[in-house]
Amino acid sequence: MTVSIAHLGPTGTYAEAAALAYSRWLSGRMGLECRLCPYPSIAQTLRAAERSQARLAVVPVENSIEGSVPITLDSLWQLENLRIQQALVLPISHALLSRAIAPSAIQTVYSHPQALAQCQNWLEQFVPNVQLIPTNSTTEALQHLTEDASSSAIASQRAAQLYNLPVLAHPINDRPDNCTRFWVVGRGEFEPCRVKSDGEVPYHCYTSLAFGLPANVPGALVNPLQVFARRGINLSRIESRPTKRSLGEYLFFIDLDTDGELETVRSALAELTAHTEILKIFGSYTLLPVDPYEVD
Amino acid sequence: MTVSIAHLGPTGTYAEAAALAYSRWLSGRMGLECRLCPYPSIAQTLRAAERSQARLAVVPVENSIEGSVPITLDSLWQLENLRIQQALVLPISHALLSRAIAPSAIQTVYSHPQALAQCQNWLEQFVPNVQLIPTNSTTEALQHLTEDASSSAIASQRAAQLYNLPVLAHPINDRPDNCTRFWVVGRGEFEPCRVKSDGEVPYHCYTSLAFGLPANVPGALVNPLQVFARRGINLSRIESRPTKRSLGEYLFFIDLDTDGELETVRSALAELTAHTEILKIFGSYTLLPVDPYEVD
Repeated sequence: MTVSIAHLGPTGTYAEAAALAYSRWLSGRMGLECRLCPYPSIAQTLRAAERSQARLAVVPVENSIEGSVPITLDSLWQLENLRIQQALVLPISHALLSRAIAPSAIQTVYSHPQALAQCQNWLEQFVPNVQLIPTNSTTEALQHLTEDASSSAIASQRAAQLYNLPVLAHPINDRPDNCTRFWVVGRGEFEPCRVKSDGEVPYHCYTSLAFGLPANVPGALVNPLQVFARRGINLSRIESRPTKRSLGEYLFFIDLDTDGELETVRSALAELTAHTEILKIFGSYTLLPVDPYEVD
Repeated sequence: MTVSIAHLGPTGTYAEAAALAYSRWLSGRMGLECRLCPYPSIAQTLRAAERSQARLAVVPVENSIEGSVPITLDSLWQLENLRIQQALVLPISHALLSRAIAPSAIQTVYSHPQALAQCQNWLEQFVPNVQLIPTNSTTEALQHLTEDASSSAIASQRAAQLYNLPVLAHPINDRPDNCTRFWVVGRGEFEPCRVKSDGEVPYHCYTSLAFGLPANVPGALVNPLQVFARRGINLSRIESRPTKRSLGEYLFFIDLDTDGELETVRSALAELTAHTEILKIFGSYTLLPVDPYEVD
């Protein structure tokens, strides 16, 4: 059986690297063959999994520098029947790709806005007067590197190899511990995960959900948070997104550490419905340990 | 005395429209003359106010569809001595600008990623196969509208007038009630605002702050939120941003409705320091009523 995995393309993106890392793990553990399917946007990547055009979708959730990826949260809220199956964290190491002989010859830098933001100090120091031009993905930026040696792009070393482009500088991200968390998403039912300590690697278990609150109740957010605090369940993340109805109305996206007893998690989720106007549970999953050297 | 007001440029952006609306209010109420100063990025706009190159900066905080503007929050956290002086909400109405004779002749659409996202349903319906190309601002997108009639840009009707460009369709935003909240920021000390009901327009008072929490304490976020809930102070917004140190560490940005007693607000802020590792108060301010017809 071949498992099709959708990801943001074209080939050479960090999302593809994450999908590759996951597919290697899936092959090694389960003996499953994987086929990677690039899509032009994150929304289309998730829609491919919802419509069963792909079995799974690998999407970025948040970066350690630039934070949340809003389109992933918004799409997951809008689409039905998608469940998070797995999380993985990928180290992100940016390179400056160009045919220029030196950084001083560069006039333009193309890249995804997140990549441009993650290298802003380096850019200000070494190429202070260049024009920064956003693109839809780091790989799309490479299309602008024509024979004109005054243009450059920020992408991965892997992309440089794939497209046979010279690396002028690496790494150029402002913080060496730059990393991005991805979710592997597929159609399925919600079931709290059981933590299996497999060999030497201890798995951690997370549960992700989102809810809306009754409008204009002072302290309305305290009640759902207390449901977890009383049970000693830690919130590893809270993120607000607009309901898109009117300014000042939000949905709250929450990740919980749910290593504990399944019954504790179940009772918390049951009590939560009393304090929320609308509630969606996106799944319960472990964090996959990814060896960074396997990726590039 | 002339008040210099920094904003994201070039001329024709929505940020400039917000700065104009504010400067009209300032002129009308205080008899002050204002001079608008465009800057190439939001970070540079705020830095201009911090370094007293401009007296004030007007920056977008959140949009009703696309949510928070992360660079505004990150910059405000990093810069010192800046205080929010005023908030204003501007209705956002997008137009498609092009020299094409009809939408069917369009091959590319340039605009700021937020504007592209706010019109995605319209674009999918009327120009489904076009290439969407992100730019640094809606006005920068206009530079790509050369004589080539196959390109288009999403910007305001005001920008169309300023640059003498034809409007092919208007409005094209997916939701008619699309609006953006802006902050007016300047150097100053923190002082809780007093609500003055001036004539017919009742002002509302807000206080904005951000804090970091002690790491890995289950329910650590509940304590600061309870400080406000116990006093009946409503959170009108909570937003998390990465500390940029490591994945899973966050700063929380909070807006409070602080119409009530000054002493209540003061005691809440004093108690808050006990539950947070680091706390910054960005200011206390009212929401300016902007007449949308004054803007265009």
